[in-house]
Amino acid sequence: MTGILKTPAKNLMVFSGRTHPELAQEVAAELGTDLVPTSAYDFANGEIYVRYEESVRGCDAFVIQSHAAPINEAVMEQLIMVDALKRASAKRITVVQPFYGYARQDKKHKGREPISARLMADLFKTAGADRLIAVDLHTDQIQGFFDGPVDHLMAMPILTRYVREKYGDRPLSVVSPDAGRIKVAESWSRKLGGAPLAFIHKTRDISRPNESIANRVVGEVEGRWCVLVDDMIDTGGTIAKAADALMAEGAAGVIIAATHPIFSSPAVERMKECAAEEIIVTNTLPLGPEHDFEGLTVLSIAPLISAAIKEVFEDGSVTSLFDGKA
Amino acid sequence: MTGILKTPAKNLMVFSGRTHPELAQEVAAELGTDLVPTSAYDFANGEIYVRYEESVRGCDAFVIQSHAAPINEAVMEQLIMVDALKRASAKRITVVQPFYGYARQDKKHKGREPISARLMADLFKTAGADRLIAVDLHTDQIQGFFDGPVDHLMAMPILTRYVREKYGDRPLSVVSPDAGRIKVAESWSRKLGGAPLAFIHKTRDISRPNESIANRVVGEVEGRWCVLVDDMIDTGGTIAKAADALMAEGAAGVIIAATHPIFSSPAVERMKECAAEEIIVTNTLPLGPEHDFEGLTVLSIAPLISAAIKEVFEDGSVTSLFDGKA
Amino acid sequence: MTGILKTPAKNLMVFSGRTHPELAQEVAAELGTDLVPTSAYDFANGEIYVRYEESVRGCDAFVIQSHAAPINEAVMEQLIMVDALKRASAKRITVVQPFYGYARQDKKHKGREPISARLMADLFKTAGADRLIAVDLHTDQIQGFFDGPVDHLMAMPILTRYVREKYGDRPLSVVSPDAGRIKVAESWSRKLGGAPLAFIHKTRDISRPNESIANRVVGEVEGRWCVLVDDMIDTGGTIAKAADALMAEGAAGVIIAATHPIFSSPAVERMKECAAEEIIVTNTLPLGPEHDFEGLTVLSIAPLISAAIKEVFEDGSVTSLFDGKA
Amino acid sequence: MTGILKTPAKNLMVFSGRTHPELAQEVAAELGTDLVPTSAYDFANGEIYVRYEESVRGCDAFVIQSHAAPINEAVMEQLIMVDALKRASAKRITVVQPFYGYARQDKKHKGREPISARLMADLFKTAGADRLIAVDLHTDQIQGFFDGPVDHLMAMPILTRYVREKYGDRPLSVVSPDAGRIKVAESWSRKLGGAPLAFIHKTRDISRPNESIANRVVGEVEGRWCVLVDDMIDTGGTIAKAADALMAEGAAGVIIAATHPIFSSPAVERMKECAAEEIIVTNTLPLGPEHDFEGLTVLSIAPLISAAIKEVFEDGSVTSLFDGKA
Amino acid sequence: MTGILKTPAKNLMVFSGRTHPELAQEVAAELGTDLVPTSAYDFANGEIYVRYEESVRGCDAFVIQSHAAPINEAVMEQLIMVDALKRASAKRITVVQPFYGYARQDKKHKGREPISARLMADLFKTAGADRLIAVDLHTDQIQGFFDGPVDHLMAMPILTRYVREKYGDRPLSVVSPDAGRIKVAESWSRKLGGAPLAFIHKTRDISRPNESIANRVVGEVEGRWCVLVDDMIDTGGTIAKAADALMAEGAAGVIIAATHPIFSSPAVERMKECAAEEIIVTNTLPLGPEHDFEGLTVLSIAPLISAAIKEVFEDGSVTSLFDGKA
Amino acid sequence: MTGILKTPAKNLMVFSGRTHPELAQEVAAELGTDLVPTSAYDFANGEIYVRYEESVRGCDAFVIQSHAAPINEAVMEQLIMVDALKRASAKRITVVQPFYGYARQDKKHKGREPISARLMADLFKTAGADRLIAVDLHTDQIQGFFDGPVDHLMAMPILTRYVREKYGDRPLSVVSPDAGRIKVAESWSRKLGGAPLAFIHKTRDISRPNESIANRVVGEVEGRWCVLVDDMIDTGGTIAKAADALMAEGAAGVIIAATHPIFSSPAVERMKECAAEEIIVTNTLPLGPEHDFEGLTVLSIAPLISAAIKEVFEDGSVTSLFDGKA
Repeated sequence: MTGILKTPAKNLMVFSGRTHPELAQEVAAELGTDLVPTSAYDFANGEIYVRYEESVRGCDAFVIQSHAAPINEAVMEQLIMVDALKRASAKRITVVQPFYGYARQDKKHKGREPISARLMADLFKTAGADRLIAVDLHTDQIQGFFDGPVDHLMAMPILTRYVREKYGDRPLSVVSPDAGRIKVAESWSRKLGGAPLAFIHKTRDISRPNESIANRVVGEVEGRWCVLVDDMIDTGGTIAKAADALMAEGAAGVIIAATHPIFSSPAVERMKECAAEEIIVTNTLPLGPEHDFEGLTVLSIAPLISAAIKEVFEDGSVTSLFDGKA
Repeated sequence: MTGILKTPAKNLMVFSGRTHPELAQEVAAELGTDLVPTSAYDFANGEIYVRYEESVRGCDAFVIQSHAAPINEAVMEQLIMVDALKRASAKRITVVQPFYGYARQDKKHKGREPISARLMADLFKTAGADRLIAVDLHTDQIQGFFDGPVDHLMAMPILTRYVREKYGDRPLSVVSPDAGRIKVAESWSRKLGGAPLAFIHKTRDISRPNESIANRVVGEVEGRWCVLVDDMIDTGGTIAKAADALMAEGAAGVIIAATHPIFSSPAVERMKECAAEEIIVTNTLPLGPEHDFEGLTVLSIAPLISAAIKEVFEDGSVTSLFDGKA
Repeated sequence: MTGILKTPAKNLMVFSGRTHPELAQEVAAELGTDLVPTSAYDFANGEIYVRYEESVRGCDAFVIQSHAAPINEAVMEQLIMVDALKRASAKRITVVQPFYGYARQDKKHKGREPISARLMADLFKTAGADRLIAVDLHTDQIQGFFDGPVDHLMAMPILTRYVREKYGDRPLSVVSPDAGRIKVAESWSRKLGGAPLAFIHKTRDISRPNESIANRVVGEVEGRWCVLVDDMIDTGGTIAKAADALMAEGAAGVIIAATHPIFSSPAVERMKECAAEEIIVTNTLPLGPEHDFEGLTVLSIAPLISAAIKEVFEDGSVTSLFDGKA
Repeated sequence: MTGILKTPAKNLMVFSGRTHPELAQEVAAELGTDLVPTSAYDFANGEIYVRYEESVRGCDAFVIQSHAAPINEAVMEQLIMVDALKRASAKRITVVQPFYGYARQDKKHKGREPISARLMADLFKTAGADRLIAVDLHTDQIQGFFDGPVDHLMAMPILTRYVREKYGDRPLSVVSPDAGRIKVAESWSRKLGGAPLAFIHKTRDISRPNESIANRVVGEVEGRWCVLVDDMIDTGGTIAKAADALMAEGAAGVIIAATHPIFSSPAVERMKECAAEEIIVTNTLPLGPEHDFEGLTVLSIAPLISAAIKEVFEDGSVTSLFDGKA
Repeated sequence: MTGILKTPAKNLMVFSGRTHPELAQEVAAELGTDLVPTSAYDFANGEIYVRYEESVRGCDAFVIQSHAAPINEAVMEQLIMVDALKRASAKRITVVQPFYGYARQDKKHKGREPISARLMADLFKTAGADRLIAVDLHTDQIQGFFDGPVDHLMAMPILTRYVREKYGDRPLSVVSPDAGRIKVAESWSRKLGGAPLAFIHKTRDISRPNESIANRVVGEVEGRWCVLVDDMIDTGGTIAKAADALMAEGAAGVIIAATHPIFSSPAVERMKECAAEEIIVTNTLPLGPEHDFEGLTVLSIAPLISAAIKEVFEDGSVTSLFDGKA
Repeated sequence: MTGILKTPAKNLMVFSGRTHPELAQEVAAELGTDLVPTSAYDFANGEIYVRYEESVRGCDAFVIQSHAAPINEAVMEQLIMVDALKRASAKRITVVQPFYGYARQDKKHKGREPISARLMADLFKTAGADRLIAVDLHTDQIQGFFDGPVDHLMAMPILTRYVREKYGDRPLSVVSPDAGRIKVAESWSRKLGGAPLAFIHKTRDISRPNESIANRVVGEVEGRWCVLVDDMIDTGGTIAKAADALMAEGAAGVIIAATHPIFSSPAVERMKECAAEEIIVTNTLPLGPEHDFEGLTVLSIAPLISAAIKEVFEDGSVTSLFDGKA
């Protein structure tokens, strides 16, 4: 037969945008490699420039960028990184988004709104992404927004293991700060040995007009340690009020657990001031010294992400990552 | 300038598949027109044949098909109808799915599952659908699965108006049969003047091993009339057990309200035997005499669908359909 | 260079839908492997659920499903299987359709009809199929409907070898039951040493009004053994009448050979009652005990399909499968 | 409501490439308009340049180009015309291909061939064509190659009307020059009052080795006037030999009828020399003085094409063009 | 015929993002309408929210956003606006980008760079943009990056008219600050009555090592008023140095003319300090009080943009906008 | 795990169209292989037929075709070759276009023109091309027209090395024949040790009306050897006049260097007659004996193309080909 035969090799390369290089480095280190040297800077008018310092031809690329503030820069930089990889002949491009931006706009709440979470998926597909790895998407349905394989990683085993080890001997309740997320609380309840479930029901207080809202606790919390669980803490208003409402209902104490510490101002102040004893998050988003405060515990998500990348690269099973854990 | 000028006309045409022609006829009648005469039959080996008896060139086509059993025939027939319209030069094709099939498979519950609800959206897009009208999608995010405009109609105003008129003077609670759908119950609560909220929490009963499940009621139901709300009743197992659990917890009575009466066997038996006083549904799915029983009330969805089609055709606002109503 | 190098492996995995598992098992066995364990069942309302019991990440997937009755379930199940494979990161997905459904609707016979055979090709492409393997497509042009490589396998060598061995010493004619398929009969004629060609010409009998049709035999059949060839036997009406017409014209005997035994009712009765001495088919479609009758011979297509899969997997030549054979 | 309202107008514009302007002009004249003035020429190295001399914004464009020799120029020019229309904001673009090039390569006859007829459809779609009008495609399945509406016009009513009027009182047979096109002959037979059907069967002559081929006539032709029908006459070899074979079998006379007069050399010589009394074609392809010869009759296809364009523009029915005709 | 007939209306609606509402308002006013009322704000973490306050169903939408700093917010906001319009059933969406961001990254200057200007075009297409209107793209080829009609407006007539009227009686030279843009200077030269042409050639000064660059003037400038022309002024470094070099070569005076005043820091300082007598720009980008300085002249681009929108809406000719002007 | 494991191999195969087989053979020989045997011929009506004589399943295909005259045949043949490779299951298809046709129509010079260079990119993508290798594209932006990786090779190092070796000791100027290509001349200048730069400015001669054009030399050329550089020589008119103009301005001599020798008539005559001492080109296009003349030097591009193919096949760096060279 005419032609030149060769046994191919495949090459895993890890890339990082500029929003959270510490996490990317930790992931690369867990995998036993380094981040690919990359030039990235902003031009005077804010346009982003990216160039890879090494050949990436034929590589299996994993581009890590958490959509931290300034979030639109983060998104655009990752899009541009994908474009550059595509045009430089990377063989396969996986975008890794420890925090997936615009996830809360996953439907039209009212007419004439965008569905930005779907738009995001389409933009990355268009830029050249073949696959997506994300952690704790705001809703599971976002998996279906991306036209390709999605590996949806869950931080819950990391968080529940920590809570069980530290608080497992106290009487626990699992509380959802919002009616829409009780399903997640139900999973926590199962992981915590069937702890009772409660949620905060926001109602208009009929006695006082003009939009004032009351937080009614539905479920059993009196005398119990309440684990308030959510996927993210943004400005922290809802969850801080929930913590206070739980104490008002006679809870013995409150612990907050959430995957994504967005910590937009004034989240830090609210967390400090609220009734919670401990706030447990992961490092899916970068936290600077200004975000540090007493009672904050940060667990690393890097082992989970690097394990997933390894399985994807080696054609192993990501599903198995969740078996027998926590 | 060279050429031939002409003022265009646009023509609304309504088409129906074979699963629920009564609803389609009711919709067409509300609009003041007839269904387009269509030949449709199955070949001996089950292949579906469709042909329109009139020219459809340039029309604004609305193809109504509810994904009733046998559901895969229903889906395939609607796909083939869309293909025939596309090839016959319809100008715009809107698929109307009073019940959108496979909506519950809207995410991967476990690894290596399909996301059939996204697949459905893509299949209709591929066949040639430009737009989608659906009623009470299982989750709102399914709007984001379709790559085009989606008009998502809500039956809740129809159902709440009925409940308010008939039961508005009794002490009501709104109950979700499942932790995942409390958000919907919260909307009901608002529409019913701030009625208290409750939900059924399924837990493994630790005292009895081997998977047996207990239904714990979380929230205030004693002495109240409970409106159990859901989007659909399939085999009716969950909702029937929920009704019985509510009575066991001291409820004064139970009313079930759901948009989609799938009524797969043995739903009818369960509905008859359960503790609910009235079961209120709409006619998004066809109900035969075998589905009739005492206590069943069927409200028509046709006025809502025909109003939406009218607004779409005349470039009006569908959002406004939900304003000031119920 | 930065990164982690690895020599890739490729993994052939064979999957089967639920319409014809016997054939899929036979194919897997010929290849020296097993079918991938798969959960597949119908929900109460008929929605199909599929999940693979093993990791399929990175595999070279072959998904076998013959579009047997109930045909729309068969099609939808295969689509859902492809979607699940795509989302589970299969590297390449080949749909294997021993019988390709809706192949007869490969053009608009009249205005405002669908072209369902093209629609089918597009649906599978959309779901995620990269390639297609099919046996004896109703028309060769269907290859061009799929936007990707198609391996079109031909059962004729299997059928002609059998006929030549059993009937080669008799005076044979090759007969097409229909003017549109004489080209196929011509190929048979070449394979059978230049046997004379004939076809059945359906004409309106002018002497008797009201649509009655006469079957006129065009070509030389008197005193000869006629091999009536077609791609499929559906209800068997045309081919049974053709057999009778040949005997009426003085044929010495009739043998029917067709690739796809759809055998929709009342095909079995017609085959039993017609003048043909032997009916030879392959097992591209499942045949139950109710389809068995005296004179029926079923040849296995599994060796051909497994040989094709092997060549596709190993980058060999499928074209060569047809060289020097039969 | 904010905005500026306006009643739209639609404008039909007809464009012509350089292969067959006479036909395009005839079509425009039938419609009551002129061809849009267009600059088109070749650069020194053969690159084609096209520019429209008038604004085409918002128009309903019909781009007529017959794929005459030099065929690749014809195809590329039409592609470039479509691109220019798309970028100049034409609202809808219909390519009109009286003769669709590469139609005979509509399948892989052997492995590793292209399917050029599908490629053509995809190229025009990519360039920006929304719809296709073609006359007598080589096979009907080509309709399914184009991803959009296809209006497939048939010249048969024009040809049969002529034959019936001129030869209707003689004893006619309809003959296909090839086993693959008997279906078309069957339609002719119906249009000519049920005339007997025959075809030419090419066989290797076993007595004389080395590829020599004999033309065997299958069917009743003796003493009858044979109407040899085909879709095109390219070099004319097959059809000329068929005419001679018919006379050798005792036919009273031969008339050839075909839609597309490609007339590649030496077609004209063969037509002149063969036994046929009259050769009837349409003007789907340009015929120069060098193609003229005694016995040639050219019927105009322009009325059919202009009627189709009119129906497409006015959202009428093209299907109805074939009703009650001829 | 079945159905409901109606004469359609089309409705022009103008939308504005938040970067340059003054220009959008000016455009709307020129058209005789208002901007569509729109809610747009940033969430705490920077995610952008957009909603239209009126129904946009069926409208012909023009979405004006200049890609001013912060540029990635500007781009993302416009993408989200387009997504919301698409899902709200706008009939046609034209993005109007007075300044098209990332235009300078229109090719790979070195390996492993992105082509961000093409990426931008694809992102807007994916979001749902049908058409693009832009002013003075950095290179004309960017028109070819967008897969749809592009109306490329040119500010040159506005600028040259001003220069001719004010400086037409002095001896002028047209100077390009860079070898790559002399083609544009050549057009200016033609518009200014054949003024001599010059350009600045940057060379490494061989006598002084270490990357120092000398600006050599090539062409005739001594004693002449030099019009330095460019498409944009970003930080102004190149053009300020060019002005100084021209004065050093004996120019009588320097006037700078550019379409896009990006004016990134320290552009204003450089413009103030450089040798140019007047700096003429348009308002394609917003200029605040901090960008104002003596010698700056700002010409409005709104009449050009509104004229183009009018022609696009009314199916007129944009090309004609450039005829007989300036 | 179920399935059959295998270590894959990859196979480089080189294919050639019929326009310039000598170059393709030289490339294959440099790579150490042969061209894949291919049947290619024209049918009587000019339709192109292509078939590969060997299995190409799974190969890494490089399809070499220079778009020489007759250029539309060249383009169409390469499209058909790509289609045949795609359908025959080639794993990856790279089109190699030493001369990329229609590159000069890379923008709309006036309204209602095509952008044929973008159209070409889309046509090849549609046919199935995954990647593109081209030499000296007319503008760099064409890289952005193709939706996939482009390896843009530059002949300049080959040409400058030759010029430096032969003419390096004379006083050189680099001259662009046109204002639009001075950027390229600037690169030459850098490669030739900072030689002065000049260009030809075409102006209407005001003294003589009616379109007569004068070639003004801008820059320093007197007494210097002028290297006139361009990307291509088509009919040679512009460059021949430029050479003459340079001599008229006192140049010591003129050398012409260009990558692509299109040499459309009457280029050869013009080159012979013009003032240039030597014309240096590469063999990106085929040159017959009729194109040979005294003073013509042809350098081979084959080593550059084969080196690029090798790097692409082996996942090496093409960018590095340009480092440290010439």
